[in-house]
Amino acid sequence: MPTAEPRYASTEALDQQATVAAFPLGGIGTGNVSIGARGDFRDWELQNCPGKGNRLPFTFCTIDVRPPGSTDPGAAVTKVLEGRFAGPHEGDSGYPWGVVAGLPRFRTSSMLGRYPLLGIDFEDDRVPVKPSLEAFTPLVPLDPAESGLPTAVLRYRVHNPTDQELQVTLALSLASPVGMDSWKSDGFPTFSEAPTVDFREDGDVRGLSFTAAGGTDDFRYGTASLTTRHDDVSVKPRWLAGAWSDGVQAFWNDITADGRLEPETRESYDDKTPTTGTRIGSLALHRTLAPGETGDYEFLLSWHVPNRHQAWHQGNEGWDDVVLNHYATRFPDAWAVAGHVHQNLPQLEASTRGFTDALFGSTLPAEVIDAAAASLSVARSTTCFVIDDGTAEGQFLAWEGSFDHEGSCLGTCTHVWNYAQTLAYVFPSLERSARRNEFLREVEENGRMHFRSVRGFGGDKHWDFRHPAVDGQLGTVLRLYREWRHSGDDQFLAELWPQVAKAVDFSFDYWDPDGDLILESVQHNTYDIEFHGPNPLGSVMFYGALRAAAVMAEASGDGERAKRYAVAAENGAAAMDQLLFNGEFYIQKLDDVDAYRYQFGVGVLSDQLLGQFLAHLTGLGHVVDADHVKSAIKAVFDHNFRSDLSEHVSVQRTYALNDEAGLILCSWPDGGRPKLPFVYSDEVWTGIEYQVAAHLIFEGFVEEGLTITRAVRQRFTGRNRNPWNEAECGNHYARSMASWALIIACTGFDWDGTAKRLALAPVVGDRSRPFTTVFTTGTAQGRIVLDGDSAEITVDHGTLDLAELVIDNRPYTSDDQGPVPAGHTLRFTPA
Amino acid sequence: MPTAEPRYASTEALDQQATVAAFPLGGIGTGNVSIGARGDFRDWELQNCPGKGNRLPFTFCTIDVRPPGSTDPGAAVTKVLEGRFAGPHEGDSGYPWGVVAGLPRFRTSSMLGRYPLLGIDFEDDRVPVKPSLEAFTPLVPLDPAESGLPTAVLRYRVHNPTDQELQVTLALSLASPVGMDSWKSDGFPTFSEAPTVDFREDGDVRGLSFTAAGGTDDFRYGTASLTTRHDDVSVKPRWLAGAWSDGVQAFWNDITADGRLEPETRESYDDKTPTTGTRIGSLALHRTLAPGETGDYEFLLSWHVPNRHQAWHQGNEGWDDVVLNHYATRFPDAWAVAGHVHQNLPQLEASTRGFTDALFGSTLPAEVIDAAAASLSVARSTTCFVIDDGTAEGQFLAWEGSFDHEGSCLGTCTHVWNYAQTLAYVFPSLERSARRNEFLREVEENGRMHFRSVRGFGGDKHWDFRHPAVDGQLGTVLRLYREWRHSGDDQFLAELWPQVAKAVDFSFDYWDPDGDLILESVQHNTYDIEFHGPNPLGSVMFYGALRAAAVMAEASGDGERAKRYAVAAENGAAAMDQLLFNGEFYIQKLDDVDAYRYQFGVGVLSDQLLGQFLAHLTGLGHVVDADHVKSAIKAVFDHNFRSDLSEHVSVQRTYALNDEAGLILCSWPDGGRPKLPFVYSDEVWTGIEYQVAAHLIFEGFVEEGLTITRAVRQRFTGRNRNPWNEAECGNHYARSMASWALIIACTGFDWDGTAKRLALAPVVGDRSRPFTTVFTTGTAQGRIVLDGDSAEITVDHGTLDLAELVIDNRPYTSDDQGPVPAGHTLRFTPA
Repeated sequence: MPTAEPRYASTEALDQQATVAAFPLGGIGTGNVSIGARGDFRDWELQNCPGKGNRLPFTFCTIDVRPPGSTDPGAAVTKVLEGRFAGPHEGDSGYPWGVVAGLPRFRTSSMLGRYPLLGIDFEDDRVPVKPSLEAFTPLVPLDPAESGLPTAVLRYRVHNPTDQELQVTLALSLASPVGMDSWKSDGFPTFSEAPTVDFREDGDVRGLSFTAAGGTDDFRYGTASLTTRHDDVSVKPRWLAGAWSDGVQAFWNDITADGRLEPETRESYDDKTPTTGTRIGSLALHRTLAPGETGDYEFLLSWHVPNRHQAWHQGNEGWDDVVLNHYATRFPDAWAVAGHVHQNLPQLEASTRGFTDALFGSTLPAEVIDAAAASLSVARSTTCFVIDDGTAEGQFLAWEGSFDHEGSCLGTCTHVWNYAQTLAYVFPSLERSARRNEFLREVEENGRMHFRSVRGFGGDKHWDFRHPAVDGQLGTVLRLYREWRHSGDDQFLAELWPQVAKAVDFSFDYWDPDGDLILESVQHNTYDIEFHGPNPLGSVMFYGALRAAAVMAEASGDGERAKRYAVAAENGAAAMDQLLFNGEFYIQKLDDVDAYRYQFGVGVLSDQLLGQFLAHLTGLGHVVDADHVKSAIKAVFDHNFRSDLSEHVSVQRTYALNDEAGLILCSWPDGGRPKLPFVYSDEVWTGIEYQVAAHLIFEGFVEEGLTITRAVRQRFTGRNRNPWNEAECGNHYARSMASWALIIACTGFDWDGTAKRLALAPVVGDRSRPFTTVFTTGTAQGRIVLDGDSAEITVDHGTLDLAELVIDNRPYTSDDQGPVPAGHTLRFTPA
Repeated sequence: MPTAEPRYASTEALDQQATVAAFPLGGIGTGNVSIGARGDFRDWELQNCPGKGNRLPFTFCTIDVRPPGSTDPGAAVTKVLEGRFAGPHEGDSGYPWGVVAGLPRFRTSSMLGRYPLLGIDFEDDRVPVKPSLEAFTPLVPLDPAESGLPTAVLRYRVHNPTDQELQVTLALSLASPVGMDSWKSDGFPTFSEAPTVDFREDGDVRGLSFTAAGGTDDFRYGTASLTTRHDDVSVKPRWLAGAWSDGVQAFWNDITADGRLEPETRESYDDKTPTTGTRIGSLALHRTLAPGETGDYEFLLSWHVPNRHQAWHQGNEGWDDVVLNHYATRFPDAWAVAGHVHQNLPQLEASTRGFTDALFGSTLPAEVIDAAAASLSVARSTTCFVIDDGTAEGQFLAWEGSFDHEGSCLGTCTHVWNYAQTLAYVFPSLERSARRNEFLREVEENGRMHFRSVRGFGGDKHWDFRHPAVDGQLGTVLRLYREWRHSGDDQFLAELWPQVAKAVDFSFDYWDPDGDLILESVQHNTYDIEFHGPNPLGSVMFYGALRAAAVMAEASGDGERAKRYAVAAENGAAAMDQLLFNGEFYIQKLDDVDAYRYQFGVGVLSDQLLGQFLAHLTGLGHVVDADHVKSAIKAVFDHNFRSDLSEHVSVQRTYALNDEAGLILCSWPDGGRPKLPFVYSDEVWTGIEYQVAAHLIFEGFVEEGLTITRAVRQRFTGRNRNPWNEAECGNHYARSMASWALIIACTGFDWDGTAKRLALAPVVGDRSRPFTTVFTTGTAQGRIVLDGDSAEITVDHGTLDLAELVIDNRPYTSDDQGPVPAGHTLRFTPA
């Protein structure tokens, strides 16, 4: 068991020692800029490409405090509104110019991130006021477009606790975040042609407008804006360009003189203004704060980098063609984005807060909330994007994750995305978009599905690999079932069903050549190798897929298949159970485990019941013997969860170590470890930890499930790893979105959109006190409060059309009828 | 004042939290590999190019402990002999394969680095023995060749504190450190053609031999060896190549089976052995340790990467031509290096320890020893190198420093190297090599010296820059004087004198057009800008150079110049003092300080007396009014030393911050700060801190000098910065070698080789107790012990030929006569 008290980034503030904490701002498919624990801007990734470590020079917030109108340097204090650098302070030339590490900063900063809402407090005994920062990008559940705005609200708030009136200025300096050619190894961008930056004012929206040089069809092209609706502003629209630190020295001279900014009177002190390099501007917001007064300073950062390469990788067909980001079909430029957000901020913020309050205000265990909330950031990271395909919604595509400077593993990989649940519940239309792509474009005539959807960018070429993925192909059938059932959209099912039937039929022929309903031929899978012979990963997924397909076949009027699938699921599960259950868990049946490289044999595979996990999530119940499933998932916990990894031996990649706790992918408690076991067997993956944790909870092992969850989130507190970035093969790894399943498992929540039936059966929390949880249906997001026999459902967003409510397996009833819009609460009692 | 107790890396051990500590191994001009505080190998830079962050995959030491002959896994413990990773544990794919972070390590490691000797202790409650590592590259004072061996001694030592006999194995695994094409952004190398690795045995030297693919004239070409003279070894000469982690899994399976290694029976499990990529081998040393026994396990790592580009930068003429490293003229390959070192290790180690003991065993302040010892590592870093020029000694060349992946600022830059003293005292032949290059190749007919010696690689092109450097050119005259005087080599002076005279004469014409003996024309300098008008930096350096040149002119039979220079120095100093001394310090005289960018005006320039500092070091005494000099250097301390930089304002590069202490380059206590002061004015440079500290001590402000020194070394404790890397414009920055001057200033040491006169007048330490210090003359290194009226001089290395000894300004005498060889001690008493 972890010995430290559970502390999470969403429950306890981080100081500036949390150097790896980086809270991402940005919407779905927009790229991100992150805020570090010092309140610093970092990891600029607006260019349709990951960019960890990318930094913009001279981009920081300055606070200036002084008696109103004073020009006495002794009466003023001017600092960068960031916490101090925590160190180490290495660098082959110290901290470089662009970091301005030599300007005074705040002694402490403390950051509390409750995704999507970030708060940072700053303290310094030399500064008479108390500033803080609140930052977010609007997140509207079920609405990928309004959750996909290329923007970040940066709201600084300053309290004047003194008995003196004070003139307080917040000045944001920003280097052009668009138009760069590349990013150097020191993290700073290069510009072969300087962008423009100007002051612009439209109505009550004013601020800086950046435009990249070059044509609008250039991949580097983009616009950005830093705007406000604040009345009293001053600006330095463009810093001095050129030699050494002229620009920043002049900026600092200017603001420290009187707390206000002036435009420079020349472009540069050099003989010729350089035409290359970055351009920097500053926007200052002024207020006079009375004693005891608190004032807001609201900036809006917006960007618009419309052009993506129409391919996954350089060298692929289409790479030189432009495809638009979906957001670019809504807005012509960053200034228009800013206008939309300024105008709609009250509603956008209300939705964001409604959802965040529902999630963080629930009585679910803190570790579950922490994990689920963090997973939302994956959906809005560089891992996911939406391209213009001519439809109103666009085409959703995703990497597995994001390497620091490129996408990691193309094609919305089916076997990785199998685990992810967050989008299915919060942005289900994106998962439907993925399913359409997979079934309509990537299933061949013989039913083989390419597990990487490269045709999402168009073109006929499929991804060339010698094996289909057994877990990916069959899991995608289960996921389609999830999407149909959650949405209740029969048209969606009808559109895809013929392809689903092909994909399922293919499985019999391809993976079960001997017809015993236990898959035994070469089974490529998510460990990037092939399993040989009977094993639970492939077969349990097969039975889950057959169960789901049977229901869909029935609904599609294909009774023959419905029956055939159901019978096969039943018989196969029984046969597999007979062959592979060893009395405690399911094994791989091989005469010689070393006959092939990378098998697991008699080991305890953490993923052995992945198909069962997906079946539980979709209301299919047990697809394999329930007692054996309980035994096996408990065995996974007993053998593979390590409360201290200090003596764990792994020559593979390392995601958890030392005295950290974690669930390893496989172990061999009874011996029989292959000489070269499968290549990730000794690793610890959060995506698998969450799926096992949720599954444990589904089977009644609640404390075991929460123990694993706590272990994960204690590794991601911001001290050793970024709470908003669970890496596997890449940052923001899709598999980590398995964590939303924890909410489902803990609450026993089930929404069947085909029957408009909502069920809840919480297994956590003290039921003698009110239990509350967030929920989503296909059309609504809200919260449910259970208090004794009473149930209250409040709709925060969308419309809830409920036909049936079941709490703790008892039907509930209400006087209210019909669809319920946002802002309304329904009250239920047992029928 | 610093509030924390002074702790230095050379006085208190660092644990594995000291993630930036990297102790460099390697000789002069050989490149380096460093050892981190965990005992890990890091920063592989053997390829004639800096390479911070370069790492070799699967390169680590394994310890295996078990009852002799046991194959019972339960009775054995096998770990990587490194301290645990301290975190953060970020990485876009976790810790990558090559780091093997998933193998168990030691709970703690503690590193004490006393350059050139490194010691690390390891502890873990699961490991029954106590291992440690001692590592060094031989350092023989005054002998750049034997201090320039491309080798590292890695001596593991294991103590068995149990009452059981134990079989203890130390196995070093090493990826080829030669033959790579490049290093990727993750730090690992790429090999388009795999190197070879084989087991080899010659006499009692045995081990692994690596050879790069490709021709011997390829820039990538090289050899390396990992050897031992240990009897009982086992080897895995080449790991399995190919897919995933086959190689490392097989290694771990092998060593954990019985504690010994076997060759693999095949090259790869893949269908075809890959021809690209790295090759890895392991060499295991075995001992049976009786209860209470301690045993050594000695490895020698050697390398030989002979071919340098014959130019500073890609694109320069000569870049495609090969010039040999000087060490490559001594040895045909790494195996030959290893043979030489194995054979001569007793003497090499004795010299190394003799010098190290003399330095660290002195009674000098700990901060002075810490600073001076660290500066030795610059001489043996990638900043310095020696190329084959057909002579026995080779041509010494150097960068200013080393950027992480390339040299920083070419041409043994005169104005930066001005400050460096370490080589002049420990490897003076290298400084003479530099002076020859500067005066014989880089002084034009009119006496202008190019301050970057690009002709060191041959060719006629000089470095094209519009200004000569006033501080560089004149400081180099003083430094030539230092080299001549220290060596007593009149032939050396005769060879260079005509060029020196030209360079001095040029100064009158160029920098003093109005003939008032105060330099006032455009004065380019080490701040990379030009000072205009009268200022102390240029003029004081001028008077120092004139004093030195006068002595050299006299010695060269040029009485006319001797007199002219002496008179000019006298008159000029008086005039300058009149014009620039403001009652407290020397200022720059400008009507409008903002008429030119980057001036300092009435500010307190830390470097205002740099020329005086060099004059003190060379026995010239005060070249400007002594009282005013004392006042001015005290003013530098009073105004520019900051005991806490939290509120310091700088928009420049940042080398010290937060509550650290440091000396800034300039301040304006009486106002008058230019709008755009010179571009480094607010920075903190260790090289200037040391020169000011030493100068303060020279002037009697001992505590002030030590305060600055403590401030520097408390910034370089290994917590926030690497103790063996003081960066400025690049790592291992040459200017930081000013610190050896602290020993000179503290001891009042002066060696005049022309008169064979040694003087000592310590100003530190409690003289009621024995005072000891290290010393060097042109031909000897030794230690001096003063105890009451008795003085003992012990020669550690070389031969001391002493005509005159002066202690505390009193002549001393001895019964012994004639030159004294190493190992002998002379005893003196007052005459």
